Amino acid sequence: MTDVVTIFAAMEMVLTDGEPTVSGHARRSGPDRGGASREIHMAQFMDVHSGFIGVTAQQLKEAHERDLAIEKDEGVHFERAWLDPISGKVFCLSTGPSKEAVMRIHERAGHPTAEVHELTVEVA
Amino acid sequence: MTDVVTIFAAMEMVLTDGEPTVSGHARRSGPDRGGASREIHMAQFMDVHSGFIGVTAQQLKEAHERDLAIEKDEGVHFERAWLDPISGKVFCLSTGPSKEAVMRIHERAGHPTAEVHELTVEVA
Repeated sequence: MTDVVTIFAAMEMVLTDGEPTVSGHARRSGPDRGGASREIHMAQFMDVHSGFIGVTAQQLKEAHERDLAIEKDEGVHFERAWLDPISGKVFCLSTGPSKEAVMRIHERAGHPTAEVHELTVEVA
Repeated sequence: MTDVVTIFAAMEMVLTDGEPTVSGHARRSGPDRGGASREIHMAQFMDVHSGFIGVTAQQLKEAHERDLAIEKDEGVHFERAWLDPISGKVFCLSTGPSKEAVMRIHERAGHPTAEVHELTVEVA
């Protein structure tokens, strides 16, 4: 039996470059490349889109690429997205500094959603 | 930019043992250990639970372990589960032969849901 539980709220680590790849909460403190001091708090999110009935793999790929093309503007990274073309639901797993940052990228990419959940616990 | 698209509907492979670990559609044909011939079609699912407001990491772990303890009865495997204790949503990613098989395990484990989506497309 798999017996792993991850409490993201309990994870804090210092990132050593500008591209955080960890899942969960992380914090970068101190000066960035520009010399300004700022903190970036990363969390994990699942957002849900409705109405993607009959959408093809190619169409999902193109939509996802529109997110990836601009995600760095908000410090977000969209890790995976899954589609059920029968129910029309899309689930996107991402990391980023806030729910609002995820929403802004999706909106600019042309597929806004108001349903974004912050995932503070994961089991596997 | 990541440029990967997986179309599960197009994936079929022969599994060589009784524990499929691939994600997506797969098929096992031919005699199994018992000598009987059967086919197992595997698909990937995301199911959603509501009402888990304030649930702790330990509680989610215990709920997940109740699924894992009986999942083989239906040929299901629950890969990951994520919780947003503020909105009370839980998302479970699984593989299995059918939506109904996933639902039966969750029901027997004490946390039934009617919201199970078959994920035939994934991008990463």
